[in-house]
Amino acid sequence: MSDDEFVITYRVRGPLEEVHARAGAIAVEQSHEFPTAYAAEYTHRSLGRVREVREVADDLADVSIVYPEALAGHNVSQFLVMLFGNTSLLPGIQVTDISYPRTWLAEQPGPRFGVTGLRALLGGVQGPLLASALKPVGLTTEDLAALAYELAAGGADIVKDDQGLSDQDWAPGLERVRASAAAIRRANEETGHRTLYFPTFSPTRDYRDELAALADAGATGILAMPGVDGFQLLRDLSTDPDIALPVLAHPSFLGAFVADGTHGIAPDVLFGELLRILGSDIAVFPSYGGRFSFDREQCARIADRARRPLGELAAQMPSPGGGMSLERVPELVEFYGPDTVLLIGGELHRDRAPRAAVREFRSVVGR
Amino acid sequence: MSDDEFVITYRVRGPLEEVHARAGAIAVEQSHEFPTAYAAEYTHRSLGRVREVREVADDLADVSIVYPEALAGHNVSQFLVMLFGNTSLLPGIQVTDISYPRTWLAEQPGPRFGVTGLRALLGGVQGPLLASALKPVGLTTEDLAALAYELAAGGADIVKDDQGLSDQDWAPGLERVRASAAAIRRANEETGHRTLYFPTFSPTRDYRDELAALADAGATGILAMPGVDGFQLLRDLSTDPDIALPVLAHPSFLGAFVADGTHGIAPDVLFGELLRILGSDIAVFPSYGGRFSFDREQCARIADRARRPLGELAAQMPSPGGGMSLERVPELVEFYGPDTVLLIGGELHRDRAPRAAVREFRSVVGR
Repeated sequence: MSDDEFVITYRVRGPLEEVHARAGAIAVEQSHEFPTAYAAEYTHRSLGRVREVREVADDLADVSIVYPEALAGHNVSQFLVMLFGNTSLLPGIQVTDISYPRTWLAEQPGPRFGVTGLRALLGGVQGPLLASALKPVGLTTEDLAALAYELAAGGADIVKDDQGLSDQDWAPGLERVRASAAAIRRANEETGHRTLYFPTFSPTRDYRDELAALADAGATGILAMPGVDGFQLLRDLSTDPDIALPVLAHPSFLGAFVADGTHGIAPDVLFGELLRILGSDIAVFPSYGGRFSFDREQCARIADRARRPLGELAAQMPSPGGGMSLERVPELVEFYGPDTVLLIGGELHRDRAPRAAVREFRSVVGR
Repeated sequence: MSDDEFVITYRVRGPLEEVHARAGAIAVEQSHEFPTAYAAEYTHRSLGRVREVREVADDLADVSIVYPEALAGHNVSQFLVMLFGNTSLLPGIQVTDISYPRTWLAEQPGPRFGVTGLRALLGGVQGPLLASALKPVGLTTEDLAALAYELAAGGADIVKDDQGLSDQDWAPGLERVRASAAAIRRANEETGHRTLYFPTFSPTRDYRDELAALADAGATGILAMPGVDGFQLLRDLSTDPDIALPVLAHPSFLGAFVADGTHGIAPDVLFGELLRILGSDIAVFPSYGGRFSFDREQCARIADRARRPLGELAAQMPSPGGGMSLERVPELVEFYGPDTVLLIGGELHRDRAPRAAVREFRSVVGR
């Protein structure tokens, strides 16, 4: 951290002399975006500058660029514009690290609940948490509610909507949410266990009314998709003055930033750190060994960034998903540690007995 | 178009037999996201299916997948989730074409103004339009307003904020917008020419109040960044019941979808078609021959998709930018045609006489 500057590290492909030129171009693109020759008198307070270019391999170097704090303009969007806005259009450049101005970081609320707050909402449970999803899309309102009941009755900590559940004719929006929420409430009353329910939320200009309707329908958490619906949404939800619900960030569309390992935003920075700063309590990401392509090292880094000390920000729960199974739980728990939300979706249904599968999870993790 | 199905074409890398397997996986990932073996009874109405796999080169094939219309769930976000949500996390897959259900497309309002409406707002001007930007970040409110006046007095059609202008201490948000808007209004009154002013808009949960404040401050257009602030924002702005302003979509952060030519969403589909369907009147994209990396063919396709017949949707103005100069205007006009907004930023300042530079543009294009 520094007093009044961001230092952003970009990993840049290319021969070293070319990287030096690209570094200078990034510093301008992400700040002035103006030909430096015509802008000399304005450079003192708003121009990025290259601090260092470090070769890390053949045709690969880490470039550190310093930006004045003021560029971020006190809002989430402008911070992201400064971080990688136009440079997103240039191939072979990846954000790999960010150092924040102390004052700026202190202004970021971060997760409202975080690891500690989430455990409190769940009645103080210890150990790894289990999330599962209401799916597949195509189930009726009744079938989804029945599944929600089974998952909650088995003792899942979090039941989330599949991100594809929306306003389909066979399971229309709020009616569906109300039915699933009621089923989970009933299971909670019967078992004494607390299961939280995170419906998918893609707001329009009527954010306030829509969020209120979702809370009124029984949501006890919110699933948000910042890649689709904007990054500010995490901030809006995590600081909403009227409705305080934990926020789960789903990676839909965010893959554009991470699928090409040489471009975008490093997965640990995106899922572990940026989503946390923006206010997500739980960050879902594709785990190693599933259907997607992060390796073990990347996953370990995501989990580390989500939980390590960062200013005064609460820790975020990493939530590895994407092809997880019960058989892998011991390995995943050993790898990710207890402050983790294991997201097991379709594989809980293998024996068509999701309640028993959830119980098996709890027994495997000693809960 | 079809009656009730989307057909989405993905270009997939890999040996042909592997592509066949990946095609099946995409169809599931983007619809059920559920192990097919456990979901047999729900497949009829919600499961994607592979229609065709066509090899187009070694290790490259076009995969067409059919999705039921209902998956899109009557909202922008769910349509995007279906299009490329989780699959964004898989490398080597690019959306290259979309065929829409007739009824779904008919429900999309698209651009509120489009090419014709924008020309009407500008007093019926013919020929290529010129947009320029208030920049660099670092100028004071007064300096920005003075620049706005010069650009408008010279006869620019559109003056937009640099996307990095925000709430910086030396040029705070609404005060800055008011000053620039007033300067443009004054120039318009003096010259009889109409220049529109598009400030940057990154709303929070208070969208309605913030948009009203911007309009009240004198905005006559809106610059939106769907990559940062969500795709729904374009729909919200283009259908706002109270404030009807043209919308310019800026590519900040959208580069993540296009910088890697083997992954994401093809530039013509993203800039030319999706932004248009979502409601942008003007799509800014990096032109060939500038600082970014699209080639001529990609740029021609973007412009074509922006303007070609698509249901009843108004045509969108393509706006090539990113390192344009006055010298290139004749070539760019010949290439892109008259229904184009040429975005020339920094290079208008080369001789420190932006008003004269704008006049030169108009003379070059015969206006």
